[in-house]
Amino acid sequence: MSKTVKSDIEIAQNAVLKPIGSIAEQLGLEVKDWEPYGRYKAKVSANTLNKLTEKPDGNIILVTSINPTPAGEGKSTVTVGLGQALNKIGKKAVIALREPSLGPTMGLKGGAAGGGFAQVVPMEDINLHFTGDFHAITTAHNALAALLDNHIHQGNALNIDPRRIVWKRVLDLNDRALRHVVVGLGGHANGVPREDGFDITVASEIMAILCLAENIDDLKRRLSNMLIAYTYDRKPVFVRDLHVEGALTLLLKEAIHPNLVQTLENTPAFVHGGPFANIAHGCNSVLATKLGAKLGDYLITEAGFGADLGAEKFLDITTRAGHFTPSAVVIVATIRALKMHGGLTKDQLKHEDLNALKLGLDNLARHIDTIKSFGLPYIVAINHFIYDTEQEVTLVKDWCTAEKHPVALAKVWEQGGEGGKELAQLVVDTVEKNENHFKPLYDLNESIQEKIQTIVTQVYGGKNVEFSTKARKQLKTFKENGWDELPVCVAKTQYSLSDNPKLIGRPKDFTIHVRELKVSLGAGFIVVMTGNVLTMPGLPKHPAALDMDVDQEGRVLGLF
Amino acid sequence: MSKTVKSDIEIAQNAVLKPIGSIAEQLGLEVKDWEPYGRYKAKVSANTLNKLTEKPDGNIILVTSINPTPAGEGKSTVTVGLGQALNKIGKKAVIALREPSLGPTMGLKGGAAGGGFAQVVPMEDINLHFTGDFHAITTAHNALAALLDNHIHQGNALNIDPRRIVWKRVLDLNDRALRHVVVGLGGHANGVPREDGFDITVASEIMAILCLAENIDDLKRRLSNMLIAYTYDRKPVFVRDLHVEGALTLLLKEAIHPNLVQTLENTPAFVHGGPFANIAHGCNSVLATKLGAKLGDYLITEAGFGADLGAEKFLDITTRAGHFTPSAVVIVATIRALKMHGGLTKDQLKHEDLNALKLGLDNLARHIDTIKSFGLPYIVAINHFIYDTEQEVTLVKDWCTAEKHPVALAKVWEQGGEGGKELAQLVVDTVEKNENHFKPLYDLNESIQEKIQTIVTQVYGGKNVEFSTKARKQLKTFKENGWDELPVCVAKTQYSLSDNPKLIGRPKDFTIHVRELKVSLGAGFIVVMTGNVLTMPGLPKHPAALDMDVDQEGRVLGLF
Repeated sequence: MSKTVKSDIEIAQNAVLKPIGSIAEQLGLEVKDWEPYGRYKAKVSANTLNKLTEKPDGNIILVTSINPTPAGEGKSTVTVGLGQALNKIGKKAVIALREPSLGPTMGLKGGAAGGGFAQVVPMEDINLHFTGDFHAITTAHNALAALLDNHIHQGNALNIDPRRIVWKRVLDLNDRALRHVVVGLGGHANGVPREDGFDITVASEIMAILCLAENIDDLKRRLSNMLIAYTYDRKPVFVRDLHVEGALTLLLKEAIHPNLVQTLENTPAFVHGGPFANIAHGCNSVLATKLGAKLGDYLITEAGFGADLGAEKFLDITTRAGHFTPSAVVIVATIRALKMHGGLTKDQLKHEDLNALKLGLDNLARHIDTIKSFGLPYIVAINHFIYDTEQEVTLVKDWCTAEKHPVALAKVWEQGGEGGKELAQLVVDTVEKNENHFKPLYDLNESIQEKIQTIVTQVYGGKNVEFSTKARKQLKTFKENGWDELPVCVAKTQYSLSDNPKLIGRPKDFTIHVRELKVSLGAGFIVVMTGNVLTMPGLPKHPAALDMDVDQEGRVLGLF
Repeated sequence: MSKTVKSDIEIAQNAVLKPIGSIAEQLGLEVKDWEPYGRYKAKVSANTLNKLTEKPDGNIILVTSINPTPAGEGKSTVTVGLGQALNKIGKKAVIALREPSLGPTMGLKGGAAGGGFAQVVPMEDINLHFTGDFHAITTAHNALAALLDNHIHQGNALNIDPRRIVWKRVLDLNDRALRHVVVGLGGHANGVPREDGFDITVASEIMAILCLAENIDDLKRRLSNMLIAYTYDRKPVFVRDLHVEGALTLLLKEAIHPNLVQTLENTPAFVHGGPFANIAHGCNSVLATKLGAKLGDYLITEAGFGADLGAEKFLDITTRAGHFTPSAVVIVATIRALKMHGGLTKDQLKHEDLNALKLGLDNLARHIDTIKSFGLPYIVAINHFIYDTEQEVTLVKDWCTAEKHPVALAKVWEQGGEGGKELAQLVVDTVEKNENHFKPLYDLNESIQEKIQTIVTQVYGGKNVEFSTKARKQLKTFKENGWDELPVCVAKTQYSLSDNPKLIGRPKDFTIHVRELKVSLGAGFIVVMTGNVLTMPGLPKHPAALDMDVDQEGRVLGLF
């Protein structure tokens, strides 16, 4: 290749942005519906939905992918590029993405604002403090922790057992030293000593709640239902018992409003919320998705990790919370990632390898089956990398054609919307055929065990589920408390369909091991932990922070 | 009294605000100089100062007070009211205040946005997340802590002694359980176990730095100079040794720009930064003060606590960092607080008591002497409460007249700017007489001991200084490291001129006990700890949070 490849931040800093007011106007919003945050960001009032009830919904397109690999799949890039491309072919498209977390930004290189010529901007703001939503969630989460510890310190009228507090603290940083801590040391004036720990903010139940709430009242109701501790006689203690749901809602009163930005090609984009795709449901807010669907013909949204995690949760949890039906699913794959599922290591990816590629297609096939089992139309998007050979692309296309999977090559990273027109047209054609038989995978009144078994069989392609002694005890407690009629949210490695990250491709006949359960009564789901789930990442040996800088004029340097 | 007294929040919610763009225009700012944060808040670029160098400075008026009492002095209220009143008598006035911290807001009732008809608005926003400055500081502070712990975890190339880390973590909350913690527990994957603790964000050295920095380069320089630990062989370790000053500056690149809001009467107000008036210098940012002075005829600014703490630090530390000279000082006193200095308890304040009042004037007299010793003109402002009797007011006025202290009654809480015209006119007259002989109290090349002695004698009216063994050792270390040519920042109880909070009024012949020193090399001062200094407050038995709420429309309830 002789052409110089520009970095994401160089492309973003050269973009010609429209004032955010003109993007809002383009969406048909009135001035009173939104508030500016700088010249290129806005919050659109969640209450705008109330006046749009009569307006028919646009099509909701979910973007998911094969199991992620170290090669990168570019799901956000395809999401942004597809939105831009739909605009180019004359559709009114709106994009909805999650907000990036500062933890990974300061730790490993790589933002969550798309890449190349398919990015949302201003990318520096989006990747740093943005409109402060995560900080509001961090504050509300830790305020609750402080109020809880203070309740115990001031006499403990609720009889809370300090050994059975299930509410930890959070920071929006990667900080392994805070995973396990002891608080309340230093004598009687400094609280009650107990074991505690910090999660990253995206793992907070409040983050999940913010993303599932339909309005401010629903937010408050969900917050008041959060389980925070048990008493000495094992009775659950909720936020409502502390009477602080009002204060927590107050701290989130701005964060609940979806953030509006634009893509490099001025396509409107909501970037709002960012729950962990592991111990939470991993998609942007229901409010952003619904608002985008009301304001556009097409709303393109993304769910975290592969279809086994993000898409399953989007389709079983998010659609129920938001009361909406998606129109189609785009499954993103890259030649590079498929080759890794076929057995290659990262340094073997630069060379053509049709055998590895063919083997890797098994992983894609499994995710296609998953989407089929939800009764939804789908499209395979090959996210093109400049290293991909023509033979490799042809192999994947031919396989799709033979198997009757609609497929399109997306060159959005390199060309922006122009490179996604084929994909966009295929999405429109697929949706307009109207062969949608969407149905969540399980009924809510099935037992927790049955729900998990359904997911393991129909989504992961596995065989059995094994519960630890602890998990079995919890199943009993949850049933006794009447918490078993909730959807389940499986926390599992994203790298494999199984719970063993090393089993790439399409493993079969495996058993999923359920170690522990956690009930998120505010978010409204039961988290099913398989294997070790890290809820506070650590920093690498050379954190990205070491290469960051800002000049006298405030221009950002070294942000990937 | 038959009239109904409206709460601060009711008054604030009924205010007719101008769009922030029109306030910016009123200041002569161009559109490119500022960015909106909602309709009624903006950030004004710190770089605006560069193009205003030729413009003469307006007069900087410092508002300080007697030693605070549980009765409340209303320094912020007088600051806001004076600005409004100066506008009413035809002067172009700008106000500069500190940003409130969420800790006290959620803990004890009482914001920091003024009161009655002398408030800055939108008060709910200002008292909650505002423009995110404190969250940016919290993030930068904790990112440094995480990077430091990660350095040790990843091999500790700098040979840092985990027992000698002087950089704690912070949260913008009152949370006593986090004062003393142990981090890094849970095995080798989770960092190195060590003692640690959390301060409230306003106590962060980064907060002090943000408020003293002259521009983004100065900010970075100061951050890089922060002392964070010592090595096993007792050598100091600085931020620059970790190479993360760029990343920290990046996290603060928006926070450094002063926030513009308005008062109830549309007077422009900068609300920016909020360092502890105890272990830091306790005034809003140098950038806000200088920008306000460039844009107005009068810049009214406030320093924390009484003149013994806030004013002394403003005059010895802030003026040096910002290279400016104040024009006059307003010393606020209330009849209620003076009576408490005269020996009354809080429940005895509703009744007239001329004897107690007369005794309490001693405290005011001491602070007047302090301002005189800096060579500055001053005005006594009696901040009127509706309970004050005519006889009480007359007593204070007569005493001032007899002692030749310029004095004015300020009814700004009750009447807004209209009630502050007498004070405003007196301020103008005093400044126009131009009898300003300002000089900081001590030279920087004096020894640390000499500087402290000067403050004790000339500001507190005390006699001796006693150093603990630990403090004496530190004096030696600081001198060896060449850190002794910095101004000193005394952390002392705000309730007394001495270091004993129970010695109200004007104690004499007392000794100040220096327990410990702390060097803030980024902020550029030596903190002198006397008595116990609490850097992480706790929540009371009934936290204010329990009475807060927000309705469906996002309207705030119960925020004092």
